[in-house]
Amino acid sequence: MRQANSLFLNCRAATLTGPDYGLIEGAAIATTPDGILWAGPADSIPAAVAAFPHHDLGGRLVTPALIDCHTHIVHGGHRAGEFEMRLKGASYEEVARAGGGIVSTVRATRAASEEDLIASALPRVDALIAEGVAVIEIKSGYGLDGDTELRMLRAARRIGELRPVEVRTTFLGAHATPADYKGRDDAYIDEVCIPALHAAHAEGLVDAIDGFCEGIAFSPAQIARVFDAAQALGLPVKLHAEQLSNLGGAALAARYGALSADHLEYLDEPGVKAMAAAGTVAVILPGAFYTIRETKAPPIDLFRAHGVPMAVSTDMNPGSSPMCSLLLAMNMVCTLFRMTPEEALAGTTRNAARALGLSDRGTIAPGQRADLAVWNLDHPAELAYRIGFNPLHQRIIGGRS
Amino acid sequence: MRQANSLFLNCRAATLTGPDYGLIEGAAIATTPDGILWAGPADSIPAAVAAFPHHDLGGRLVTPALIDCHTHIVHGGHRAGEFEMRLKGASYEEVARAGGGIVSTVRATRAASEEDLIASALPRVDALIAEGVAVIEIKSGYGLDGDTELRMLRAARRIGELRPVEVRTTFLGAHATPADYKGRDDAYIDEVCIPALHAAHAEGLVDAIDGFCEGIAFSPAQIARVFDAAQALGLPVKLHAEQLSNLGGAALAARYGALSADHLEYLDEPGVKAMAAAGTVAVILPGAFYTIRETKAPPIDLFRAHGVPMAVSTDMNPGSSPMCSLLLAMNMVCTLFRMTPEEALAGTTRNAARALGLSDRGTIAPGQRADLAVWNLDHPAELAYRIGFNPLHQRIIGGRS
Ligand SMILES: [Zn+2]
Ligand SMILES: [Zn+2]
Repeated sequence: MRQANSLFLNCRAATLTGPDYGLIEGAAIATTPDGILWAGPADSIPAAVAAFPHHDLGGRLVTPALIDCHTHIVHGGHRAGEFEMRLKGASYEEVARAGGGIVSTVRATRAASEEDLIASALPRVDALIAEGVAVIEIKSGYGLDGDTELRMLRAARRIGELRPVEVRTTFLGAHATPADYKGRDDAYIDEVCIPALHAAHAEGLVDAIDGFCEGIAFSPAQIARVFDAAQALGLPVKLHAEQLSNLGGAALAARYGALSADHLEYLDEPGVKAMAAAGTVAVILPGAFYTIRETKAPPIDLFRAHGVPMAVSTDMNPGSSPMCSLLLAMNMVCTLFRMTPEEALAGTTRNAARALGLSDRGTIAPGQRADLAVWNLDHPAELAYRIGFNPLHQRIIGGRS
Repeated sequence: MRQANSLFLNCRAATLTGPDYGLIEGAAIATTPDGILWAGPADSIPAAVAAFPHHDLGGRLVTPALIDCHTHIVHGGHRAGEFEMRLKGASYEEVARAGGGIVSTVRATRAASEEDLIASALPRVDALIAEGVAVIEIKSGYGLDGDTELRMLRAARRIGELRPVEVRTTFLGAHATPADYKGRDDAYIDEVCIPALHAAHAEGLVDAIDGFCEGIAFSPAQIARVFDAAQALGLPVKLHAEQLSNLGGAALAARYGALSADHLEYLDEPGVKAMAAAGTVAVILPGAFYTIRETKAPPIDLFRAHGVPMAVSTDMNPGSSPMCSLLLAMNMVCTLFRMTPEEALAGTTRNAARALGLSDRGTIAPGQRADLAVWNLDHPAELAYRIGFNPLHQRIIGGRS
């Protein structure tokens, strides 16, 4: 463990505070227990920090520690059997008849204890940490009953205690309608989802509220009821929107000042403008696009044109994105959506922080937390260029390496 | 290190020796220094091996150790700058003017010492080993002069000594025409490629010969001259064929009894039939398909219909497939090409061994090497289902764990 004050030297710092990655060659970064005190070229180190204990980073690349801002990483079971069935030619109906689809994850999650949920999630969490991730958002949404939704969130909070990673929890009761409420979506929202939200909030388990606005999930009117409840509790909202069709979900989320709208393949320009006006982040999720073989890409050019910040996440989930690599998500948004490597890195640092409502991290600048990732790389473009390769040298969390 | 004889117990073994993965529940595997002596259900262990020292595998899944049968993992430099330029909108011409493309890798490789080549390749090799890989094929082809082609192959051989992995070398002098032979492809083949092949063979550096048969590379007639030289030396051949167009490369390779033809997106049925008749393996390379955003998939159904064995590989290279994960290649052939998880696993074990001319590995059966991979998984379908996640528990190489 390092001293409380540190001066990290001999690195190339992608600060994400300006154009061209905010790159500083021959950088130095001074940290205290309160965070980053100073970052700049080593030839202009202020006298006040010059005497901090020195740590040579060997010429390596330093970035803000990564942030995975959209995951369903706590869940029971897996869906490899269904994956295999489909590849052997089974129809969706046959898969459903065999008990597949989200209902199988709901069943497995309900059957899992809090300890089971933690034990199965930890190897996935560890895979993200090993890639330099310091913050993971974790959603509920596979319980669809009060007990299980709360158990998922408790498991998420416990993971943040068991591992050196900050967990941000999101209540996603409006993920799907469970079998016992089939055809009674409104009743599910009123009788299960909103009461569970109140219970989870009372237990301090909720950092934000999410929903799934889609023909196969909930209507904008139903989502609005959940968002009203969130607003009454003073909790920020976000939304799975425009993944498979355009129901105006992103615009609805923007009306509630949402932190983010996520997926967005079918979003149109009015929706993009609504997000821009509200400062809502677009969370790009290439793992699901890739896995379900979607062909319509999210409107990256419109996000650029209207200044909507783009975040990038794994969407780690057992059905449409069984992906545990945020670096791979960075490569995928470049390869599949033609985002630039710089946009990909901003998407897993500065803009991912914003998608979680965190203003104290995601860049290398005074006042930010001293959460850094040190890479065995020359240039930040390599982070998105490589596929299935982890170049992490070390994480520095709170100034400690 | 384990004893010379071992009896591995309490596992589920995907032997790849029959249908449904050749799966044995409650399996036991007996090994000696000569390899696998017996594998079968634990309730029928022969008396001769029952007294071997026992090793409990904790109920885990065991497969043959993986084999990556097509890589360019030894090379100088990287192409992240070019990746970024293209994503910022540069044309191929602009990239070429800026010194990009294969010529940049040739330049960096020529400038690298043998030690440089080894040092840069080892982290990539280690990433594959960490996924349970026991054999890696490594090609030359970025030297395009005698000295550098041989240096690449020496580096490859050294990697096999420095790491617990078997390296199979492939001479790929006919990869591209270097700048100083521009427009004089035939002269390059006669004056550089074939003499370098003879020199490399004389030094014991060549296990097989490869070429790139394509409009942007070499014609079938030019490749045939290289294959004639290979045949005269008694060396097996393989070919990069039908990646971007159909020149009849796979059929040419089949006429020479090739171990494999690789890529094959543009292959037609006569070519498939020629491969089937010759017993040539189809090596499926999804990383390049994904990276160059190809839309034409290789003819998987025709390979199945005609009984052509399919192998799966990373094609690890700095331009069209900067991918270091064989597990990800397994997911990609399922997701992108609708291969089954079982075909994906056969493609990185049994059929990958065949693509390298190795008959002593790739399955769990008596007489095979005791090269095994032990996974924290329930079912072999999970290997291809997960994305960017490494569930390896341990490798067992030569019966030693
Ligand atoms: Zn999601
Ligand atoms: Zn290749």
